[in-house]
Amino acid sequence: MPSSPRRVRTGRPRLPGVHHAGNHGSGHLPVQAPSRCVPGRHAAPTRRRWLLNDLVVSRAHIVTCDPQRRILRGDVVVRNGRILAVGPNARRRARPDSEVIDAEGCALIPGLVQTHVHLCQTLMRGMAEDLPLLTWLRQRVWPLEAAHDADSLRASAELALAELVRGGTTTLLDMGTTHGHDVLFDACVRFGVRAYGGKAMMDRGQGVPRKLREGTKASLAESDQLCATWDGAANGRIRYAYAPRFILSCSERLIRETVDRMSAGFFLHVHAAEHAEERSAVRAIHGADDVDVLSRWGARGPRCVLVHGVQLTNRQVRSIATADTHVVHCPSANLKLGSGIAPVGDLVRAGAAVGLGSDGAACNNNLDAWMEMRQAGLLAKLRGGPGSFSSQQALDLCTIGGARVLNLEHEIGSIEVGKRADLLIVSLRSIQQAPVVDVVDTLVFATGSQHVRDVMADGNWLVRNGELQGWDPEKIRAEAEAQAELLRRRAGLQ
Amino acid sequence: MPSSPRRVRTGRPRLPGVHHAGNHGSGHLPVQAPSRCVPGRHAAPTRRRWLLNDLVVSRAHIVTCDPQRRILRGDVVVRNGRILAVGPNARRRARPDSEVIDAEGCALIPGLVQTHVHLCQTLMRGMAEDLPLLTWLRQRVWPLEAAHDADSLRASAELALAELVRGGTTTLLDMGTTHGHDVLFDACVRFGVRAYGGKAMMDRGQGVPRKLREGTKASLAESDQLCATWDGAANGRIRYAYAPRFILSCSERLIRETVDRMSAGFFLHVHAAEHAEERSAVRAIHGADDVDVLSRWGARGPRCVLVHGVQLTNRQVRSIATADTHVVHCPSANLKLGSGIAPVGDLVRAGAAVGLGSDGAACNNNLDAWMEMRQAGLLAKLRGGPGSFSSQQALDLCTIGGARVLNLEHEIGSIEVGKRADLLIVSLRSIQQAPVVDVVDTLVFATGSQHVRDVMADGNWLVRNGELQGWDPEKIRAEAEAQAELLRRRAGLQ
Repeated sequence: MPSSPRRVRTGRPRLPGVHHAGNHGSGHLPVQAPSRCVPGRHAAPTRRRWLLNDLVVSRAHIVTCDPQRRILRGDVVVRNGRILAVGPNARRRARPDSEVIDAEGCALIPGLVQTHVHLCQTLMRGMAEDLPLLTWLRQRVWPLEAAHDADSLRASAELALAELVRGGTTTLLDMGTTHGHDVLFDACVRFGVRAYGGKAMMDRGQGVPRKLREGTKASLAESDQLCATWDGAANGRIRYAYAPRFILSCSERLIRETVDRMSAGFFLHVHAAEHAEERSAVRAIHGADDVDVLSRWGARGPRCVLVHGVQLTNRQVRSIATADTHVVHCPSANLKLGSGIAPVGDLVRAGAAVGLGSDGAACNNNLDAWMEMRQAGLLAKLRGGPGSFSSQQALDLCTIGGARVLNLEHEIGSIEVGKRADLLIVSLRSIQQAPVVDVVDTLVFATGSQHVRDVMADGNWLVRNGELQGWDPEKIRAEAEAQAELLRRRAGLQ
Repeated sequence: MPSSPRRVRTGRPRLPGVHHAGNHGSGHLPVQAPSRCVPGRHAAPTRRRWLLNDLVVSRAHIVTCDPQRRILRGDVVVRNGRILAVGPNARRRARPDSEVIDAEGCALIPGLVQTHVHLCQTLMRGMAEDLPLLTWLRQRVWPLEAAHDADSLRASAELALAELVRGGTTTLLDMGTTHGHDVLFDACVRFGVRAYGGKAMMDRGQGVPRKLREGTKASLAESDQLCATWDGAANGRIRYAYAPRFILSCSERLIRETVDRMSAGFFLHVHAAEHAEERSAVRAIHGADDVDVLSRWGARGPRCVLVHGVQLTNRQVRSIATADTHVVHCPSANLKLGSGIAPVGDLVRAGAAVGLGSDGAACNNNLDAWMEMRQAGLLAKLRGGPGSFSSQQALDLCTIGGARVLNLEHEIGSIEVGKRADLLIVSLRSIQQAPVVDVVDTLVFATGSQHVRDVMADGNWLVRNGELQGWDPEKIRAEAEAQAELLRRRAGLQ
C-alpha cells in the first residue's frame, strides 16, 4: 500500500514519446514561483506556470457559489494561483502592474467540477448505442477497453480533455480501464486540469474479457504502483482514487483491501445502484443491494464516491447522507442506458455531498458539464416538481458540490479569497441567452460550452477567447478518428 | 371565414416602420424568378430571392430522411428553390456555371422542422422559473403576454428567429398571443423561414388577464382577418393555423367554429394533455380528458395538431393514431414545468405523425432543435428501453415527422428530388463529435446548433459559415434586452 496522501512530492512523471504542451499562458511565460509562494503542503513542481503578475478580472457578474451563494459585481484578483480578493473594491488589492481582463457582459464562475468521467471511453463515442447497461458493458465497452493500446488511450484522453477543458471543466474524477493508466494521468498533467483518477479494478464478473480480468493481488499492486507514481503530481493537481469498477466485477477481498486504502486517505470510486437489471444480478449474488453490501464491507463515508444511485431507496438515501458517503449524478447517461432518474433532490435535501458527471462518451455521448447541469435541473423538476430544485442547486452540483465530493471544498468550487484560481469567464451576450434576468438561471438553462470564453485552472490559462491554449483541436480530432478506427478493428466490432 | 387555403396570392404584406432584411444570398443577388419557374399554386411574390445559378453541394454525407432513410455520398443539386438531383452522379445534372459548395466532412440534412414554438415568449426567457403549468401561465406568461406591445413582440420574434435559424430550424409552427400577431408573421417573412402560425384564442378561463380575454366572435374575426391577410404570403411560406390555446381557455363554440375552419383546409393548433393538474381541472369541468372532448367537438384528424400529449392513455394513443391526429412532443418544456414524459415511442409505433418543438423560451429556456432531438431520444429510451427508439427516429421528429405534422411531407422534411431546397450543412469535424461512427447517431447525440454551418430555406441562404445573413445578432440581442426590461415593468413583475 502506498503511503498516505498529501505527502510532499517534487516533480511530475513524464512519459517517453508524448507531446507535452508548452506555454499555457497568453502572454504569460511559464514561470517558477518563488519558494515563499508555494501553496499547500506540496513542494514546487518542476514546471510551474503561474502568472508572473497579478491578474484582475473586472466588471463580471461574479457567481461566487460561496456559502451565501452571492452574486457580486466587481473584480476578482488572482495572485500566484490563488484568489487574493473578490468584490467591488478588490482591484485596490492588486499590484499596479497587474494584467486586467475585461469581463463586462460575462459571468465569472468557479471552474466546473465533473466527478465522474471515463477518459478512456471517449474514443468509443457512437460505438455502443441502444443497449442497456450490462449488455453495453459486455458486448461493447469491455471488448473495446480490452482492445486499447497506449496510442488509443492517449488519443482518447486528449480528445476527452480537449472537450472537457474547452467547455470549462477544470477538475475531474476519472475511472480508467484495467491497464495503461499512466497515459491518462500524463494527459491530465499536460492539459493542466485538476484530476483525480485511478485504474478500473476487476477481479471477477461475468463477461469480463481475459485482458481486463485481474487477480486480486495484481489489481491492488498495479493500483498501488500508480498511486505511488502519480498521487500528488503536478503541483498536487493529480490525485489517486482507487476504482473498484462495480460490485459485480469485484470480490469482497478486493473491496475490503481498497477500503483499507480509503482509510489511509485515498478515495474509493465505485459505480453503484445504476440499473434495475444490475440490481437484480447483485441481489441474486449478495442477497442485498450493492450500496448496502458495499457499506457493510466498509465502502462508505466521505472518501467513498458512489456513482449513479439511480436505484436508491429512501432508506439508502438517508444512510448515505448520515454516513457522509458521496454521490455522483450522471443524468444523461442514466437516460441513455435506460437506467432511470436518480433521486438527486432527495439526496441534496438529506445533506449528502452530490456531484455531477457526464460519465463516458460511450453513453452520453458528450462530456459537457453544461448539458448535465441543465439535465440535472430538468430531471429533478420532473421528479420533485418545478419548485423543488433551483438553478443554483444545479450549478452547485458542478461547483461547490463537486468540490465537496472530492473533499476539496476549502480549495476549489467557489470564488472566495484564498481558494485556488479555477475560474471561468462565460459570455452572457448571445442570442440564445437574452434576456438575462437571473444570471444563474441563464447559466444553467440557456448556456452551453460554446459560451465559455476563458478557462483558468490553478492560476493557468487553459482557454483564451474560446481557444484551447497549447493544443491544436484539429490534430487531436484527426488522431482520435484514426485511433478509433484501429480500436474498433482490434475489438472485432466491424 | 376566409376562403380555403392554397388559393393564388400575390405579394406579401409589409408592416410600416420595420426593418426588412436585404439580400439573403452570399454572392447571390435577390432575383425575380422567371414566371415559368413558379412552384406550386402560388403566383410569384413581390420579392423572390432564389439563386440565379444551380447550386451543387458536394462531398457531404447526405442524410436523406427519405422512405428508406438512406445515407448517401455524393452531391445535391438545387435549381430554382427545389432539389433537382441527389446522389453520386447528381452533379452531371447541374448547369456548367453552377456554384459548387464543398461540404467534405459535413452532413447535408433536411432543414429542421419545429412544430411548436411561441415566438412571442422568447422575451420571457428566465422570467417564469420554477412554476408548474397553470401557475406559470396565470402568474407569469399571461401577464407578460398581456403587457406586450408591437415593439416588444417584434423584438421577441426577431430574437427567436435569430436563434431558430442559426440553429437550422427552417420550418416552424408558432402559437402567438391574443393580439398583435401581424408583427410575428412579418418577422417570419423577413427571416425567410417557412412559418405556420396563428394568434392564441382565449374566450374563457380562470386567471386570464382582461387584455387577453376575448369574445368568441371577436376571437374568430381577428383570426379570420389574420388568415386572410397572411395565409399564402411570401411564396407560400406563410400559412395560417388557428390556435385555440387549450381547452381551459376556450368555449365549446370557439372550438367548434375553429373546427369548421379546419374542415375548410386550415390547421387547428392546440395544447392538450400537458400536465396532471390541468387534466384534473379539465375533468372537473368536462367530465373527461381534453383530447376526448376535443375529439368529440371535431378537433381530430390530419389538420389537428395536439401539442404535448404527456398525459395520454394507451387508448388515447390508439385513437389519435387511428384518426391521424397529429402530435407534437416538447420534451424539455415538459420536464421543466414538471409535466412528465410523453409516450412518443408509443405514438410513433402506433403510426401517428409526431413532430418536435422547443415550445417557448419561457419554459425551456432554449429554442434549439438539436437539444430537443437529443432529449426526445433520451426520454424515449428511459420510457421504452435503450433499443426502443433509434437516433433516426429522433431525427425524424424534426425532419420528415415534422413535415408530416404540417402535411408537408411531399414538399419538405427529406432530401429527395423535387422537394423544396430546405437544407442544412452541418460540420462533423469537431472535438465534441469525434469519432463519427454513424452519422445519424452523431447528429442526434453529439451535435449542437454551434455545428450548423449553412442553412438554406426555400432555396435561399439564411446562414453562411455560421453567420446569419442580413441580420446583426448583437443588435437583435441588445434590442431584446431593452424590450424585455420594458415588458417586465409593464407586466408589474419587478
